Amino acid sequence: MKPRSLSILLPSSLAIDASDLRSKTAKIGQIARAASVFRADKIVIYRDPDLDETELIEKILNYAETPQYLRKRLIPLAGDLRYAGTIPPLRTPHHPLDAENIEIGDIRVGVVVRVHENGSWVDIGSKRSAFLNVPLQKGGRVNVRVTSNKPLKAVPVDDDEIAEYWGYSVARAGTLSEALAPTRTQTQTPGLRIATSRYGESIDADLLRKIGAESGSEDVLVVFGAPHKGISEILDEEKKEERGKSFIAEFDYTLNTLPDQGTETVRLEEAIVATLAILNLAFH
Amino acid sequence: MKPRSLSILLPSSLAIDASDLRSKTAKIGQIARAASVFRADKIVIYRDPDLDETELIEKILNYAETPQYLRKRLIPLAGDLRYAGTIPPLRTPHHPLDAENIEIGDIRVGVVVRVHENGSWVDIGSKRSAFLNVPLQKGGRVNVRVTSNKPLKAVPVDDDEIAEYWGYSVARAGTLSEALAPTRTQTQTPGLRIATSRYGESIDADLLRKIGAESGSEDVLVVFGAPHKGISEILDEEKKEERGKSFIAEFDYTLNTLPDQGTETVRLEEAIVATLAILNLAFH
Repeated sequence: MKPRSLSILLPSSLAIDASDLRSKTAKIGQIARAASVFRADKIVIYRDPDLDETELIEKILNYAETPQYLRKRLIPLAGDLRYAGTIPPLRTPHHPLDAENIEIGDIRVGVVVRVHENGSWVDIGSKRSAFLNVPLQKGGRVNVRVTSNKPLKAVPVDDDEIAEYWGYSVARAGTLSEALAPTRTQTQTPGLRIATSRYGESIDADLLRKIGAESGSEDVLVVFGAPHKGISEILDEEKKEERGKSFIAEFDYTLNTLPDQGTETVRLEEAIVATLAILNLAFH
Repeated sequence: MKPRSLSILLPSSLAIDASDLRSKTAKIGQIARAASVFRADKIVIYRDPDLDETELIEKILNYAETPQYLRKRLIPLAGDLRYAGTIPPLRTPHHPLDAENIEIGDIRVGVVVRVHENGSWVDIGSKRSAFLNVPLQKGGRVNVRVTSNKPLKAVPVDDDEIAEYWGYSVARAGTLSEALAPTRTQTQTPGLRIATSRYGESIDADLLRKIGAESGSEDVLVVFGAPHKGISEILDEEKKEERGKSFIAEFDYTLNTLPDQGTETVRLEEAIVATLAILNLAFH
């Protein structure tokens, strides 16, 4: 059953096995694609003290998720994003191929470019800005629905009015334990926490059905370890260093989604696609 | 249930959406990894007249599959393989990390470097060549088991003596229809032919179980279309051009392994990992 939300938790050391910026970018780009194909709502980067590349990962994930027509405005092309152009486009509904082609009723991501006491002008990918009848924060990102083409006018839309997949947000956590701690949203439903590990339970059709039955309307978290150490090792370290605070991480499932793998190691980007592809069947 | 063999059928136009050799190499490298993670025995490249890069694909797939210590001998580093070094290592059992560390009983891929009437010398990754008591074809690739360390001696081993995943072979087919035509091996068992299509039947736990029950001891073929056209279009074209010959392709299943995808398009390398990850559960 469809979860209420899907979050992916990844370590700040996820690209520790990539030696240069180009291959780090390629890896993070593949993760951005996988998150979009499987409609992840949120990617949380939890800090691994072995390598903290949170900022780089966040930058590249955000770059990939931003509609092409807003990148120039929202993202300063710093040195870190040197290879970001090589990431394949996400081709999500919020990334129109022809941004200039606007129809009434279209929902668009926009950025506020000019504010006036009577309203705001928002760049939604057209040469003309769309006028909104409300004052907004200049430079802010906003979802709007087009209400008139000539002149170009729009109104803000709430997330729950958008039926299509509308990209992911990126968040940070100081530790994995912190990322797993119940949040206000999650206490509304018990939540379903899934860890991935090659030492976990091999997933099969029965387990898939069980997870499917339990995932409906839940906030589902899927946690991945680092290329050089697994989730239990990471949590043990956090506990030892008392970075884990009071929350003891408990998972509803610890799954091996790649039983009988033919290779000694499975790369994180491969494990993410494989795991989300399998869970997608449970959620569907 | 474990299939007797697993073959992946891919079009010669699989990298049509990649603009340069570097990104083509990355794409083909990801396919090599996926084939290995999910223990594919064979990758068949069927010719798509829109773009025939069979040779390039074959070269890169073979490069990735060849143990590092034999690459210099077996593969001339032609211009096409300029970026092949950027492909992540497969880390399969036939690619030892430390090739010099040889123990009695080890199985190794070797290449015949010198032949004598009483036997052959085979390079198995050590500075010393291993002596085999049989005359072999010079330059040929052979699987051997080490029987003595000092002096280094080995015997040839048959494929069915190797329990671990031992890499894939690469083959060509003139058309998809030809690739699907029953072969002598396949007539021993009915075979299971699986097509992938976003217009196919969405796979779920029930279907997974059914495929699992039918796949045991079968030769399983998993067919993928091209980035720019699907399998049915490819087969229709072949039929029209009478390239399809007499064989009418019939699939046991046409599966959508990515139901409710969040992106307009799913890249072939993503579809391969997702599909093989799901089928792996059926086969396990």
